[in-house]
Amino acid sequence: MAASAAMAALRAVRSVPRSSHRAIRPISFTRVPVKPVRAFSISARRRDDASDNSEPGHNVRYTTDLYPELKRNPRFTELKQEHVDFFKKTLEDESAVIDGLSKDATDDLEPFNRDWMKKYRGHTKVVLKPKSTEEVSKVLKYCNDNMLAVVPQGGNSGLVGGSVPVFDEVVINLTRMNRIRSFDDISGILVVDGGVIMEVADNFLKEHGHTYPLDLGAKGSAQVGGNVAANAGGLRFLRYGSLHGNVLGIEVVLPDGTILNDLSKLRKNNTGYDLKQLFIGGEGTIGIITGVSIHCPQRSKAVNVAYFGLESYEQVLKAFKEAKLQLGEILSAFELMDAESQRFVHDKTENKRPLEGQHPFYCLIETSGSNGEHDNEKLETFLEHVMGEEIVADGVVAQDDTQIAELWGWREGITEAIGHHGGTYKYDLSIPIKDLYSLVEDTRERLNSKQLIGDDKAAMAVVGFGHIGDSNLHLNVPVRRYDKEVEAAIEPWVYEWIQKKGGSISAEHGLGIAKAKYIGYQRDETMLKLMRQIKQLYDPNGIMMPYKYLEGVPEHTGAATS
Amino acid sequence: MAASAAMAALRAVRSVPRSSHRAIRPISFTRVPVKPVRAFSISARRRDDASDNSEPGHNVRYTTDLYPELKRNPRFTELKQEHVDFFKKTLEDESAVIDGLSKDATDDLEPFNRDWMKKYRGHTKVVLKPKSTEEVSKVLKYCNDNMLAVVPQGGNSGLVGGSVPVFDEVVINLTRMNRIRSFDDISGILVVDGGVIMEVADNFLKEHGHTYPLDLGAKGSAQVGGNVAANAGGLRFLRYGSLHGNVLGIEVVLPDGTILNDLSKLRKNNTGYDLKQLFIGGEGTIGIITGVSIHCPQRSKAVNVAYFGLESYEQVLKAFKEAKLQLGEILSAFELMDAESQRFVHDKTENKRPLEGQHPFYCLIETSGSNGEHDNEKLETFLEHVMGEEIVADGVVAQDDTQIAELWGWREGITEAIGHHGGTYKYDLSIPIKDLYSLVEDTRERLNSKQLIGDDKAAMAVVGFGHIGDSNLHLNVPVRRYDKEVEAAIEPWVYEWIQKKGGSISAEHGLGIAKAKYIGYQRDETMLKLMRQIKQLYDPNGIMMPYKYLEGVPEHTGAATS
Repeated sequence: MAASAAMAALRAVRSVPRSSHRAIRPISFTRVPVKPVRAFSISARRRDDASDNSEPGHNVRYTTDLYPELKRNPRFTELKQEHVDFFKKTLEDESAVIDGLSKDATDDLEPFNRDWMKKYRGHTKVVLKPKSTEEVSKVLKYCNDNMLAVVPQGGNSGLVGGSVPVFDEVVINLTRMNRIRSFDDISGILVVDGGVIMEVADNFLKEHGHTYPLDLGAKGSAQVGGNVAANAGGLRFLRYGSLHGNVLGIEVVLPDGTILNDLSKLRKNNTGYDLKQLFIGGEGTIGIITGVSIHCPQRSKAVNVAYFGLESYEQVLKAFKEAKLQLGEILSAFELMDAESQRFVHDKTENKRPLEGQHPFYCLIETSGSNGEHDNEKLETFLEHVMGEEIVADGVVAQDDTQIAELWGWREGITEAIGHHGGTYKYDLSIPIKDLYSLVEDTRERLNSKQLIGDDKAAMAVVGFGHIGDSNLHLNVPVRRYDKEVEAAIEPWVYEWIQKKGGSISAEHGLGIAKAKYIGYQRDETMLKLMRQIKQLYDPNGIMMPYKYLEGVPEHTGAATS
Repeated sequence: MAASAAMAALRAVRSVPRSSHRAIRPISFTRVPVKPVRAFSISARRRDDASDNSEPGHNVRYTTDLYPELKRNPRFTELKQEHVDFFKKTLEDESAVIDGLSKDATDDLEPFNRDWMKKYRGHTKVVLKPKSTEEVSKVLKYCNDNMLAVVPQGGNSGLVGGSVPVFDEVVINLTRMNRIRSFDDISGILVVDGGVIMEVADNFLKEHGHTYPLDLGAKGSAQVGGNVAANAGGLRFLRYGSLHGNVLGIEVVLPDGTILNDLSKLRKNNTGYDLKQLFIGGEGTIGIITGVSIHCPQRSKAVNVAYFGLESYEQVLKAFKEAKLQLGEILSAFELMDAESQRFVHDKTENKRPLEGQHPFYCLIETSGSNGEHDNEKLETFLEHVMGEEIVADGVVAQDDTQIAELWGWREGITEAIGHHGGTYKYDLSIPIKDLYSLVEDTRERLNSKQLIGDDKAAMAVVGFGHIGDSNLHLNVPVRRYDKEVEAAIEPWVYEWIQKKGGSISAEHGLGIAKAKYIGYQRDETMLKLMRQIKQLYDPNGIMMPYKYLEGVPEHTGAATS
């Protein structure tokens, strides 16, 4: 009964002619063998952004202009020639030190001073690129002994301004620490230098039938050590879980130069406090991660992607529940995109929309499994069910890698599509799943009521998308120009909203400089006190990542979550 | 070609007549619908052990006799009547305090003084059973203010003597904190009191289509808070991973009575150091876990179990690699049992062996998935392959829940079968997978060469089994009586062996009192120094779990892993 209704619904979908060369075939009962793994990546763009010297980004405002209340901490020594000389001597290789003190090196320094979003820009005069843990130890100890402030830097693909300096902090960039140290193809345990690029690690693993347990748009530039320091989440979190579970060991250099060797290659090791966990998500504030041991799962032979339209957020939740139930162990992504987000992608790319009609919500489902035929069958049964029950209004399934990449483009292309006008106010939030989308509606209503959105206004729209499988919403407000009035309408209101709902003000992007001052909406004074103790313990001179993370917090915020 | 060879091998297996009522049907191509979920549990036994007052265990030696070098730390106050009076007044309920000071309560105290293995036995005179976080806070603060040493206690199912007192420490037992606080059936996030028994949590989750992400033989007595404090691993680790990834939040009472509320119900929350991780595997040394928020996966509709014999450890590794490749996402257990382990189970239970012939190695594979037919097909394809390639010598697949339980009995029954003679020297070790079984062989050779094994000797055998999927070996030496000579032959030799191979001296059982003095074989002085700083930070009076965990370590062990 339900099945025949589903058949009818599917036939209706199939009857729509789709003839464009980029059309995706509608849901079909024909089993098409699915090709292995998605090759799609938008990472190149980001990497180019960060190292593109032809566009030195002198038009990017300094972070110190963005936050005029920030003052350089006079505790820190100003960079002198003797410091630069020490660095050059210690790191040996001439190219390991970008010296902006003895000569004008503005353009060379720019990619390290500026983040890829062109939102944050620092004033550093020196970038160090050590090539070994020992070199990191030597330069970090020297900085600590001489009270030189430090910013550890990986792929510089962060979203909260954490990876670039604010004032004249010394940048220690891990790019030259790029060795794959070992891999065990029975246990799936990979050990790499902190500076290995995620995509490099994943390509290496692909050759050995395994996969990196994390996927990000920025994978072409983001580094493994940076992933760990930021506790990156991303697209495979739903399937493979948190780095707190997948990272088996780290090698880290403490501010005083001590090398902490906790590079275990074991999945289980219950021998004392799991100190490495403090560095996972520590955002470089208590040490520099120079090595990572990580458990990598078997690579899935088959990947399927479906994209569908839904009429309400309630239907999205129903579809998610059904997907968990029916797709179970093969579900590897369940992404939400609202109508606004898809409109921006459409306007920017001018690609033909995957579905004929328009809907208030769209979801992208990915399955990854060891048997393509089984996976197809599960996906089809699921789709029959959700269409038969009218949970899903319309949908398509990709039939090959190209179509998989195209469908992912409608999700991964959002950031770029909305960001190229004048900027975006970005909020990366965790919200208990039932309330997740109501924040987008409330924000829209709020900006509308203040008449801040429109064709001739600063704000263009309120856009919601994210990893619904992890209750992780990306609330984005694309603007024609950064505007104090828009900002004041959203902040701290959005954090108060999150606090009331028991959500998180930073789901996966971290605190950096962008969220530092709002942590009081998330953590109570007891937690903050204990966190400050940790910082004090590992970095008593406070040289690491000043002005960020916990440092944005006044001693008594008054705010607290229950 | 390979397929027809496999067919022949399978036919050969099938031709063996099996007629006993408890016989398990051999590998078969007939698809038999698999029943949902395994109901099997050996947990009742352990719970009875721990609370069996009819057998007060006065024959169990005191831990202080086992370790005569341990001296009661005179810093700690001796229990006085005023302390007991305070506890009675604070906890209100008369039954919340077992008072062995003002009267003889030896038998009542015994289940809390003695561990379930009957290996460790303390001298406590008082057991407290608070029923709320606030009560825990009040009594713990009082103990801290009065320098009364404390042992937090969950289900008392640990294996390293951590959960029972050594001298007269106050036992704070969490049994009465047994509320399920909330469950979200879309996100799968469960919040419970620390004292909720795992099996209770799992039964609750079962009703809601979910599963507790951890399975242990002791699930009928082990508590969720204890699981987290011990960072328990167990049988589902291979599939669902570590508690460091699955635990989303905890509520913990610090020694000074501070209630740390980090009970997040979010999968992602990157706002500051992840302090809760220190308490996961902290073994109660820095606080008492009173609440846990944990991510629980969808319950698998189908469970299959296969049991097979192999001719060498190399074949075991090949079979594991193939299982990861072919069973991928549905593989939920890959357990190793050597011939000795199965001989003990056979001798104890007198059950018919699952396979006709005998083999040096046996493996048990479990699959859990959302579609029984697909899972059967994958398992059969896998078995065809490993038999066709002669990786596996012989095998059977369970056809119903009873058979699943029977097969698991050959794995889960090992501990009981070898332990009931006079005792067992137990080592829970992580070893890089390729070297894992060579430790069993080396130990056997060592004890044989010292003529310590035999019919009239103290040691009966050297037994190896464990979670091969996690590189986790349980090396067991069953003895007729605990014997100094046997112990001296194994320890510290076994830890030196582990140190050389880069393994872990405690994979999942923790340090407790049993492993405390050996941590120097695992962690270098830098790590130990940093760990001691954490202990000092949270428990400056050192009242929590004295004589255990890091306290067994001399300040300078000299030993270090590379």
